[in-house]
Amino acid sequence: MADTDNSIRQAFIEDPPNVLKAKPSEGAKRFRRCRSTPSDPTDQPIDQKPSEHTSALKSKELFKDIRPSFRLVGLLLFVYLLVGVIIFYLFMDQISGKRTNRVLDALYFVIVTMTSVGYGDLVPNSNTTKLLACAFVFTGMAIIALFISKAADYIVEKQEVLFFKALHMNMKGGEAKILRAMETNRIKYKFYTVALLMATAVVSGTLFLWKVEKLSLVDSFYCVCATITTLGYGDKSFSSKLGRVFAIFWIIMSTILMAQFFLYLAELYTEQRQKMLAKWVLKRRITTMDLEAADLDGDRKVGAAEFVLYKLKELGKISQEEISSFLEEFNRLDVDQSGTLSTYDLTLAQTS
Amino acid sequence: MADTDNSIRQAFIEDPPNVLKAKPSEGAKRFRRCRSTPSDPTDQPIDQKPSEHTSALKSKELFKDIRPSFRLVGLLLFVYLLVGVIIFYLFMDQISGKRTNRVLDALYFVIVTMTSVGYGDLVPNSNTTKLLACAFVFTGMAIIALFISKAADYIVEKQEVLFFKALHMNMKGGEAKILRAMETNRIKYKFYTVALLMATAVVSGTLFLWKVEKLSLVDSFYCVCATITTLGYGDKSFSSKLGRVFAIFWIIMSTILMAQFFLYLAELYTEQRQKMLAKWVLKRRITTMDLEAADLDGDRKVGAAEFVLYKLKELGKISQEEISSFLEEFNRLDVDQSGTLSTYDLTLAQTS
Repeated sequence: MADTDNSIRQAFIEDPPNVLKAKPSEGAKRFRRCRSTPSDPTDQPIDQKPSEHTSALKSKELFKDIRPSFRLVGLLLFVYLLVGVIIFYLFMDQISGKRTNRVLDALYFVIVTMTSVGYGDLVPNSNTTKLLACAFVFTGMAIIALFISKAADYIVEKQEVLFFKALHMNMKGGEAKILRAMETNRIKYKFYTVALLMATAVVSGTLFLWKVEKLSLVDSFYCVCATITTLGYGDKSFSSKLGRVFAIFWIIMSTILMAQFFLYLAELYTEQRQKMLAKWVLKRRITTMDLEAADLDGDRKVGAAEFVLYKLKELGKISQEEISSFLEEFNRLDVDQSGTLSTYDLTLAQTS
Repeated sequence: MADTDNSIRQAFIEDPPNVLKAKPSEGAKRFRRCRSTPSDPTDQPIDQKPSEHTSALKSKELFKDIRPSFRLVGLLLFVYLLVGVIIFYLFMDQISGKRTNRVLDALYFVIVTMTSVGYGDLVPNSNTTKLLACAFVFTGMAIIALFISKAADYIVEKQEVLFFKALHMNMKGGEAKILRAMETNRIKYKFYTVALLMATAVVSGTLFLWKVEKLSLVDSFYCVCATITTLGYGDKSFSSKLGRVFAIFWIIMSTILMAQFFLYLAELYTEQRQKMLAKWVLKRRITTMDLEAADLDGDRKVGAAEFVLYKLKELGKISQEEISSFLEEFNRLDVDQSGTLSTYDLTLAQTS
């Protein structure tokens, strides 16, 4: 969930960058924030304005190369479809079923295959096309999965902002307040957004099949359900030229929305569980045993940071292995063995 | 990933509980571990032996009720299949296609529908059965998704232990060492295990279709690929009585394995990325600005816990919001405002 913390913030580019971090209910007077570290440097959009923090910048540049961006996934999808159309255009004679236009049918077949809908209204009938279909369904599914995990989330987030803005048009306090409300319920709003988009897809698909493909209303709805779940019995499908043009866009969009819907549902559930656990961890009575266990440096006192670390570990957010590796690093840097790091330690550690 | 830390450890019930935590390369002498807090109390198997730590016990009991256990998901699947068989047995006259045995066909139809394979060899041909199929594909997919996220992971883990044990039969140092090796590469081994299981499913399915259903070898492989990806064109499917008995078990197993395969692939990728980031965060030169930002309590010194918190935040593992909520709690408990918690603070805070 921390993975997407920054993206919404980026959608409102005109907003001051730290408006979300200023929570009015703070209360703790003597605690300051770790200001120069971003929440998650890996997940900032590539085309973001350069910030003044060098550490954030460096890690952003590092991950520009590894993380498949929205554009890369889009390009991959385009290349896949292009190769698919060329291959199945050439082998169209070894595919049997209802035909319309040769190029259109090739594209329709590739999309029905890659989304694993598989109506069966166009079926490979030679060994070559059968094995080609096998290769295309596996690679296509991988691309769809990549698309779901990367690009679709980004698109839904953009839609979500619009959706939320429309919903809270009259809300006082401006965008900062809207953003804060969204931030606390991010997954819930993503879920609402995707549910709304899916309802649109179901209605538009049903109307199209009813009006253009001349199916009955029940058959239209049945074909829509069979498609978005990738069930694809194939007794009802898109058989006209216009129908297949519509299907090309509609199938890819609706199946991805459906997968995204389930993904957010799972995330929503996980978040609820995590919130309940956090509540319990916060409420739990602290015992002397806890104090002893939380005392990381063995000085018989539990400082603020030690307490937070102990609680985060109890919450299951971090593991002992992670703490250990950073403790080792701390130990290495703390040259004078004072138990605290100072500028003096840094000078000593980094010159030697 | 922290979500599954404890489960493997539980599989070897004869092992001492803390063997995994004792890493020999520790190095830091004056740091002790937070001993009484488990890594993640929510994800311990339900039938685990009670540990001596009360906090772990309490949270385990709390989450026994919320978390859908392996048994619950199994029961849900059973009820779903039972209801499905009864309904489609009664409505079998409104389903057209190749028939064998009425009960068997009903079960076969439910499974082909719930996994979204949808061959189309049995198709609903009345409005009632069409709408019933729609209802069954949505609920079935939700159950399959639940099964993938909860139960399948547990099963793969059990298999993984056997697989790993067989692989490292001659490894010296006993189980503790094996466990440690597995712990560091958990997802990689899960991925290998699921890949091995999937290969078994592909080979057994192909052989069955070839020998029993008398398809050609290419057609058998083609039908297997079309099934495990839930493509299900339907030009080749299980049409004999024996074939459908096999299909009932094989389809549900192989489609889940396929989904799990993609899931682990994604996790593996995420883990690699996370490791690279961790390496970079560890290696990065600490500056005076970092020290200032890491100084949580503003005492102009950076203690061990403060350093670890700062690094974890840089890693994107924790957010400022989480730190803030626990700092508030710390502040509330620290009644004498000394900046550290003591038994005295606890007594004051919890009696008032």
